[in-house]
Amino acid sequence: MKRYLMAPGPVAVDPHVMLVMAEPVIHHRSPQFSEILTRVREDLKYVYQTKNDIFIMASSGTGGMDASVSNMLSPGDKAICIIGGKFGERWAELCQTYGVETVNIDVEWGRAVDPGQVEDALSAHPDCKAVFVQAHETSTGVKHPVKELGEIVAKRDNTLLIVDAISAMGVYDLKTDEWGLDVVVSGSQKSFSLPPGLSMVSVSEKAWRFAEQAKCPRYYFNFLKERKALAKKTTAYTSAVSLIIGLGEVLKQFKAMGLDALFAHHRRLSEAVKTAVASMGLELFPKDASEAITVIKAPEGIDGTEVVKVLREEYGITIAGGQAHLKGKVFRISHYGYLSEWDMIIAIAAIERALNQLGHKVAFGSGVAAAEEYFANS
Amino acid sequence: MKRYLMAPGPVAVDPHVMLVMAEPVIHHRSPQFSEILTRVREDLKYVYQTKNDIFIMASSGTGGMDASVSNMLSPGDKAICIIGGKFGERWAELCQTYGVETVNIDVEWGRAVDPGQVEDALSAHPDCKAVFVQAHETSTGVKHPVKELGEIVAKRDNTLLIVDAISAMGVYDLKTDEWGLDVVVSGSQKSFSLPPGLSMVSVSEKAWRFAEQAKCPRYYFNFLKERKALAKKTTAYTSAVSLIIGLGEVLKQFKAMGLDALFAHHRRLSEAVKTAVASMGLELFPKDASEAITVIKAPEGIDGTEVVKVLREEYGITIAGGQAHLKGKVFRISHYGYLSEWDMIIAIAAIERALNQLGHKVAFGSGVAAAEEYFANS
Repeated sequence: MKRYLMAPGPVAVDPHVMLVMAEPVIHHRSPQFSEILTRVREDLKYVYQTKNDIFIMASSGTGGMDASVSNMLSPGDKAICIIGGKFGERWAELCQTYGVETVNIDVEWGRAVDPGQVEDALSAHPDCKAVFVQAHETSTGVKHPVKELGEIVAKRDNTLLIVDAISAMGVYDLKTDEWGLDVVVSGSQKSFSLPPGLSMVSVSEKAWRFAEQAKCPRYYFNFLKERKALAKKTTAYTSAVSLIIGLGEVLKQFKAMGLDALFAHHRRLSEAVKTAVASMGLELFPKDASEAITVIKAPEGIDGTEVVKVLREEYGITIAGGQAHLKGKVFRISHYGYLSEWDMIIAIAAIERALNQLGHKVAFGSGVAAAEEYFANS
Repeated sequence: MKRYLMAPGPVAVDPHVMLVMAEPVIHHRSPQFSEILTRVREDLKYVYQTKNDIFIMASSGTGGMDASVSNMLSPGDKAICIIGGKFGERWAELCQTYGVETVNIDVEWGRAVDPGQVEDALSAHPDCKAVFVQAHETSTGVKHPVKELGEIVAKRDNTLLIVDAISAMGVYDLKTDEWGLDVVVSGSQKSFSLPPGLSMVSVSEKAWRFAEQAKCPRYYFNFLKERKALAKKTTAYTSAVSLIIGLGEVLKQFKAMGLDALFAHHRRLSEAVKTAVASMGLELFPKDASEAITVIKAPEGIDGTEVVKVLREEYGITIAGGQAHLKGKVFRISHYGYLSEWDMIIAIAAIERALNQLGHKVAFGSGVAAAEEYFANS
C-alpha cells in the first residue's frame, strides 16, 4: 500500500534528504565532520533567531527536556510549570524526578495560558528559578504566548524561561533572543523533517549562570561539557553523524526558502485544513489553535481512534489520535514535515470518507472544496 | 577522494542497510513499527545470548552507560570500578556524578584486570552494589575477563555485574545469561555496523530487583518505564525509527551468518593485522589484546597523530589515534563494522606507506605479505 505520514511527528522526510543521510558514514572526530557540525549549528541559529549556543544531542526531544531541567536547577529549587496538556505534565514530572518543587498552573486542555496568571504566580513565588512551558503543546494543538511570557520573565534576574519548542521551532515565528527565551528545546522529527534521534537546545547568557550553579546530577546530558566540546567543534559524546548531516541538508533548504516563506507555508496548510474542518461540519478541539497541527474533535458517536485506524489500515494514511484523556476524542493532522498542499487534500478527503464509513454523514468533497478554494484564492 | 572508514566507531555501514534506512519514515506508535521493534528485540537477544529484556534507546553508547548507573543504584551506594582506560574512567565519573562512592581498581592501560583482585575488593567491600567493567576497553584494545567476573559476582546476591560491551557485543562471544552479566550496554555504531544514535541495554532478573529500589533521579533513561512500554511493544519516548529499522536489517544478516561465523570473521581480520604488525617490526600496545581492534604503538620518533593524519588527509583512510595519555603514542584499527579482508590489506599497506613517508623505514609489502599469507592459509 502506498503510505502517507501526516502525524505530528515522526513526519515524512524528503527522499533527497534520506539519500544524503544514506551516504557513507564519516567519523565524528574528523575535520570533515567538524566543518559540517559547525555549519549546522550556525544554520540552526538562523531558525532559532538567536546568537546563543545551540547543542545537538543524540536523543529524542524528551532527552532535551530532561537536559533542560537537570542542567539549570538543583534539588530543592522551585519552578512554575504551565500544564495544559501531556507535554506540560512532562515538565512537572521531570521537576519531580530531580527534586524540584513545582508550582503548577493548570490550564484547560485546548486553551493557552493567560500570561497574567504566570505574572501572579511569579509574584506569589518570587523564588521560582524557572518557568517551564510548551511553545506548542502537541497533545492539544495549542500555542502558548511565549513572547509575553518572555517579557514577564526577562524582568527577573533569578528566573529563566524554559521552552519546549519541539513542535514549534521552524514551524512559526519564535524569536529566541528578542523574546528572551532562555532555554529552547527542539527535535529532529518535527519541523526539521528528519527521522527521530536528535534534540537541539539553545542556552542564553542568563541561563549559563544557572548551568554553572545547577546541582542536579547529569552526565550524558551536560551543557557545560557540551560547551567545552563546542569550542573544539565537536560534541561531548559520539555525534549522531547521519542525522546531523541530514539536518544540514534540511537547514540549507530552510535558508534558501527563508523563514517567512517557511512559516507562511505551514500557516497555509493549517488554514486550508481548518477551513475544511468547518465546511465538513466538524469542530476544532483547541480554542487557541496553532498553525502547527490541526486537532479535530471526533463527532458525537464516533471513536477518534477508529478514524485513525481506518485511515492507517485501509487507506495507508497515518495521522494521530488523542493522548491521555483525549484518547478517542480527537484526531490530529500535522502541517509540518515534508508535506505539500496536495497532502492536505488527501488528508481531508480521507477524513470525509472515513467518517461516512464509520456512520457519520459528511458530504463527499465538502471539506476538499473549501480547501481547494482557500488554496486557489489566498 | 574515495574514503574508507576503519576507526573503532563510527564504522563503515553496508550501503544496502543505509538504503533500507532511507525508506520512508514510519510512525513509532504504528502496528507496523511495533512488529519491527519486537523482532529487532528478539534478534538482539540472539546476539546477546540472553532471555533478558533488552531496551533500545535513542542516545550514543554513553547514554546507555549513564542509564545503567542511574537505574541500578542510589546516592550513597558503593561500587567497584575497574579502570584500565578512558572508558573505565567514564564508569567512575558516572558514579561520582550520581553520588555513588567508588572503589577503584586501577589496571595498567593495556592490561586486563586480574579477577582475583576483583574478588579481593569485593571481600574487602562486601557492601559494593555493583562491579563496573568494560568487556572491551576501546581506548586500549583490551578484553577484560567478564566470564570470570560473572562467576565471582554471581555468588553475591547484593552485587551486580554491569558491563560496557559497546565495542564487544557482536564482536566476540559474550554469553550474557550463562556468564551472569546483569546489565550489558551496547551501541549501534560498533559491531552492529550502523550510524551512531542507538544504545541497547539488557537487564537481568537480578538487576530488576536493583532497578526497583534505585533512587538516582532518571527520566529519559528509565528502565521501569521502558519495561512498561515494552509490554505495549513500544518505547517510552519516540523511537529512533530509522536506526532501529537499520538494526533489524543488520541483525537479519547476523542471524543468517550465525554467531560463530560472525565472531570468526572478526578474529580473522584481527589476526591478519596483528601478524602484519609483527612482520612490519611494529609492536602492539596492549599486552592482553582483543580481536575487536588492533592498537599499534607508534614507532620511536613517530607521532601516532601524524600517522592518522596522513592516512586521513592524503590517502582517504580514517583510523583512530590514541586517547588521553595515549594521544600520539598509538593508532587504532577496527575489525568490526562493514569491513572485509581486503580492507585490512588496504589498512596495512597504508601504514607501511605512511610510516616510510614520516621517516620510519618499513619494507613495502612486509605487512601485506604476512596478512595475505595468513588469509590464504587459515
